[in-house]
Amino acid sequence: MTLAPSDTALVPFVSVDHMMRLVHHVGLRPMLRGLAEYIEQDFRRWELFDKTPRVASHSAQGVIELMPTSDGEVYGFKYVNGHPKNTREGLQTVTAFGLLADVGTGYPVLLSEMTVLTALRTAATSAMVARQLAPATDTMAMIGNGAQSEFQALAMAELCGISKVRLYDIDPAATEKAMRNLAGTGIEAVACRSSEEAMIGAGIVTTCTADKQYATILTDNMVGAGVHLNAIGGDCPGKTELHPGILDRADVFVEYTPQTRIEGEIQQKPEDFAVTEMWEVLTGAKPGRTSDRQITLFDGVGFAIEDFSALRYVRDALPGTGLGQMLDMLADPDDPRDLFGMVMRAA
Amino acid sequence: MTLAPSDTALVPFVSVDHMMRLVHHVGLRPMLRGLAEYIEQDFRRWELFDKTPRVASHSAQGVIELMPTSDGEVYGFKYVNGHPKNTREGLQTVTAFGLLADVGTGYPVLLSEMTVLTALRTAATSAMVARQLAPATDTMAMIGNGAQSEFQALAMAELCGISKVRLYDIDPAATEKAMRNLAGTGIEAVACRSSEEAMIGAGIVTTCTADKQYATILTDNMVGAGVHLNAIGGDCPGKTELHPGILDRADVFVEYTPQTRIEGEIQQKPEDFAVTEMWEVLTGAKPGRTSDRQITLFDGVGFAIEDFSALRYVRDALPGTGLGQMLDMLADPDDPRDLFGMVMRAA
Repeated sequence: MTLAPSDTALVPFVSVDHMMRLVHHVGLRPMLRGLAEYIEQDFRRWELFDKTPRVASHSAQGVIELMPTSDGEVYGFKYVNGHPKNTREGLQTVTAFGLLADVGTGYPVLLSEMTVLTALRTAATSAMVARQLAPATDTMAMIGNGAQSEFQALAMAELCGISKVRLYDIDPAATEKAMRNLAGTGIEAVACRSSEEAMIGAGIVTTCTADKQYATILTDNMVGAGVHLNAIGGDCPGKTELHPGILDRADVFVEYTPQTRIEGEIQQKPEDFAVTEMWEVLTGAKPGRTSDRQITLFDGVGFAIEDFSALRYVRDALPGTGLGQMLDMLADPDDPRDLFGMVMRAA
Repeated sequence: MTLAPSDTALVPFVSVDHMMRLVHHVGLRPMLRGLAEYIEQDFRRWELFDKTPRVASHSAQGVIELMPTSDGEVYGFKYVNGHPKNTREGLQTVTAFGLLADVGTGYPVLLSEMTVLTALRTAATSAMVARQLAPATDTMAMIGNGAQSEFQALAMAELCGISKVRLYDIDPAATEKAMRNLAGTGIEAVACRSSEEAMIGAGIVTTCTADKQYATILTDNMVGAGVHLNAIGGDCPGKTELHPGILDRADVFVEYTPQTRIEGEIQQKPEDFAVTEMWEVLTGAKPGRTSDRQITLFDGVGFAIEDFSALRYVRDALPGTGLGQMLDMLADPDDPRDLFGMVMRAA
């Protein structure tokens, strides 16, 4: 009898360090492309998924959420917190980890950090959507230059042919950081002094600001015909970025309507405000962009299926890389009824 | 600048091996007593807890559940599966792991295996309840001699003064295994050939059988006046162990009524069937046992707060033991807005 855990009892774990190594092993742009492919695959088989709303535990300081989903063969969930005040204490506003399990046995098959991975999947989702909806353009305005901004720029470059990014943030230090990070990526970055200036010539306008409030980052008269708005910073109740007038002039595309009505820009609108779910565009059930003058708006809030796709990608990318660490996470007695004997023999 | 993860980014992980070492470091009986104290503490402050029903993902093969709760300062959840067919493939029916996080920051503070820990907390809960409700007795009948049986015996010995356990299982091999495991524990174990024989002289009757069906392990005429029934095997929809007539003769005590009405023995009864929640007994709000002739019945299904208490216990017991392994689970850039820079510098 061996006391070493058996293979079935070990769960591969991808640490933050290993996730970063995986990014460099695959390459950031190819990894964003790969993630977008996995997300698109899962959006195309949308109806197959068990779509539970996220389970939130709210406190005065923030929120902790569990986001589970399943395609009937694989189960996944993400743990994610949102604590806006954390930044003031030198901590991340959002940290996350996730897990995949085999539906057939209930055994976990992957545990992974998801702070880095969520940043990647959020950018990959935006670019996957923009590839469907945006006009032909080489320029993106990036309003809000926080932790997500460079990932957005790279994903839009990789999937939508963006070569110029016009940056604006109310904090010039954030813009300077993004300028530094984008130097050498092959993307031409321009620091702008206002949102209006950032939007000059941009076919894609990404808003990703952090303040939890009903903010108006874009007013109605700023948005010209034909652009694609990628609004990803309005992502929880009480947090929006766009003037409601923009929503009336745009065709609005969402991930999962019940969640977006609570968390997205459309929380400013009545329950029957018309939206199209992106999976319907991808399967051809509904049209995407239909004219050059149309304003398309992706009201992105982040949905569990995107995390599921990202974890699937990591699971498939891991073999042969030497990355991932085996965790002895599951008890596996020789006789499943003899847990007590296993514990006692460990003495 | 260092690329090593900072202290705040590391989460202590307790593997199965380390959990077993912790059991031997503390001692199994003292650990069961300690767990019972933590569980009782948390039951006494029951009203403080955020009590979400478990979030279940069902499939033809089994169920995967997330069980979150919070006391306003600490958040916890358990991942647990239930796959009855797993045993036939040499896998555990139930595997589990859990996590504690700081409500103030949302940062995880403990990740732990919970297959072994759940077995311990289930037994500790039963004994904590029996200490309140059971008559004075030195004998327990243990009907169903699977993975939970020896833990029940030890916990009842430690907390309720049980010195004799009368074992019965439809599979004699299970009883033989329990007899072997209990040898040398100081508990006198007797193998019986029927439930009736096992119940002779027993003041506490524990039923813990595994088949997922409406089974009748105990019929009405088998249960005499004055005993305490600890019915823990009826713990999901469609799985019960007791004849409904027993429920009519007993005073029924539960953990959390909304969950027990779905999962417990009382699923056989109408929605208004009278029950007492155990926290009410512990705080003195409601009576427990009131007479020598009374049949008390603990309809235990396992509740999230017990897992929370068990994780709290482990967190407090860990320091100084050398157990636990630090996992690099949370990204922690020097500048929280510069996740991209952190990823790029890892190259």
